[in-house]
Amino acid sequence: MTSTHRQWRLRRRPVGDIGPDDLELVTVPKPVPGPGQILVRTIYLSLDPTNRIWMSDRPQYMPPVAIGEVMRGGVVGVVERSNHPGFAAGDYVRPAVGGWQEYVVADAAQKLKVDDAVPLLAHMSAMGMTGATAYFGLLDIGRPQPGETVVISAAAGAVGSIAGQIAKLKGCRAVGLAGSDDKCRWVTGELGFDACINYKTEDVGAALSRECPSGIDVDFENVGGPILDEVLARINLNARVVLCGLISTYNDDGPVPGPYQFSMILMRRALVKGFIVSDYAARFREFYADMGQWLARGEIRWRADVVDGIENAATAVNRLFTGANTGKLVVKVGEER
Amino acid sequence: MTSTHRQWRLRRRPVGDIGPDDLELVTVPKPVPGPGQILVRTIYLSLDPTNRIWMSDRPQYMPPVAIGEVMRGGVVGVVERSNHPGFAAGDYVRPAVGGWQEYVVADAAQKLKVDDAVPLLAHMSAMGMTGATAYFGLLDIGRPQPGETVVISAAAGAVGSIAGQIAKLKGCRAVGLAGSDDKCRWVTGELGFDACINYKTEDVGAALSRECPSGIDVDFENVGGPILDEVLARINLNARVVLCGLISTYNDDGPVPGPYQFSMILMRRALVKGFIVSDYAARFREFYADMGQWLARGEIRWRADVVDGIENAATAVNRLFTGANTGKLVVKVGEER
Repeated sequence: MTSTHRQWRLRRRPVGDIGPDDLELVTVPKPVPGPGQILVRTIYLSLDPTNRIWMSDRPQYMPPVAIGEVMRGGVVGVVERSNHPGFAAGDYVRPAVGGWQEYVVADAAQKLKVDDAVPLLAHMSAMGMTGATAYFGLLDIGRPQPGETVVISAAAGAVGSIAGQIAKLKGCRAVGLAGSDDKCRWVTGELGFDACINYKTEDVGAALSRECPSGIDVDFENVGGPILDEVLARINLNARVVLCGLISTYNDDGPVPGPYQFSMILMRRALVKGFIVSDYAARFREFYADMGQWLARGEIRWRADVVDGIENAATAVNRLFTGANTGKLVVKVGEER
Repeated sequence: MTSTHRQWRLRRRPVGDIGPDDLELVTVPKPVPGPGQILVRTIYLSLDPTNRIWMSDRPQYMPPVAIGEVMRGGVVGVVERSNHPGFAAGDYVRPAVGGWQEYVVADAAQKLKVDDAVPLLAHMSAMGMTGATAYFGLLDIGRPQPGETVVISAAAGAVGSIAGQIAKLKGCRAVGLAGSDDKCRWVTGELGFDACINYKTEDVGAALSRECPSGIDVDFENVGGPILDEVLARINLNARVVLCGLISTYNDDGPVPGPYQFSMILMRRALVKGFIVSDYAARFREFYADMGQWLARGEIRWRADVVDGIENAATAVNRLFTGANTGKLVVKVGEER
């Protein structure tokens, strides 16, 4: 065991894409758990579009990461030392507060049950926060009914790929949008969406009209921008827009026009609801029960895009914005055993 | 009794403002009620911003009025002849289907109880569809809690003036926006809003910051455009935007950018819901009970802007878009008795 560990700190607020000097990797003394605390060795670090929001100081749903602070991020890891009666060395856990670092001291953590159906990586994807985001956003805000049409942008992403599969389980027509033919093949072939539109090569409006002949009842929105406009132009009366993300705008610094089809929200008497997964913290048990069952039965599939080494986190996070990753983007910080 | 009556027909779809040749006033034979029907003489005709939407063929929440058809509109009137066991001559009614005309034959109508507290004109305003719009929009979508701040655009309009008073009855801070100092004086002086911002003379953003020191929890939105942006920039976490109207855009034909602050819906985990009053048809009894009581107690005040003569309907409707009217815009088509 070493006496130091590495962590990424926010050096300055990015302008546009996240640049090499916006974060810095520093080596610091390994933290020591106090009474009632556990020391967790990070195994996987979650990279998510919302990281870019936290790096900015625009108005947002949580406090931004302060300059000089360890970059915030979801992690799973293993307990290395425990001063807490509820945890033992070797337990897999999701610490309440994680970060872009090799070790973290935590007062609270969620113990993870790891098995063949739900390996540790699944706790970073389908069974993790992105899976829960898809689950609560689609079911609680989208309220999909059998026979309805659900459109999912960023369908090959960590959240979209799960949202569309849940829509299928609920008897809906699931139409995805993704940025390459490879992604679209995965979305329709392995995940079972009814259709997937390559928004980089197809006329999105015409493709949506073709694939959604009965209009759009639910939009699981991860992207925003011109794609959202094409969706809004085709929503049915009483449509629901699950506003999960607007990744197309996160790197913009100036004002971005809202959807030109904004008035369709009124004309179609639609609902738009922004949310984050922690809004549903009190109901996570429902999610773990349902998702655990779906994973055990093989009814939900997931993929992780694993980047090796914490030193690569700051460059890997840009993969989310260039569309380079498929499925859940994760940094492997250390070995599982 | 004459054998003819006058009606306005849609001649062509307006471009921009409603022009004198977009509608035509024709004289036609007075309709004759069939078995089970009633003949209603129109007393008041409601003029509403949504009339402009119905005249266009853009996507909307009801079918547009067809070219050559009688212009659609809400009316109250008196039964002149009845072949229906539920109605007698002299009954005041709101026919299920009205129109810009002196007479209408109806299969169904709502009988109106007219007294000192709720005169017939109140059935066109506070106790009518605009009152119900304010009531259900604010209470069902806005869900205002005591101590919260509610912003109401077009606060001197038929809907906004009622919505703000209901917000006050529910223990909220009510901040209105209106287009003249006279309107603002009515809104704060007679209606009891806590503040009213003249959006034509004040810096709306600065004024909202001043009048909403704890941020905005509910936005009752009637207008859209730059005012909505200033509101969205100041919404609190879990804010609700009651999307009732977007009158600033109804006369535009080209694409209109949506709110530049659209991403605040995500960042503040806010809800936006478009609606029309008929969504709540099954719950009108609640509205009549509450509003009847508020009117009887003098807790809700209303004003009607009455234009005399059906021949003036087509020019009067533009008062809604120039901001010329205060309270409910109504055409007096015939005498009450």
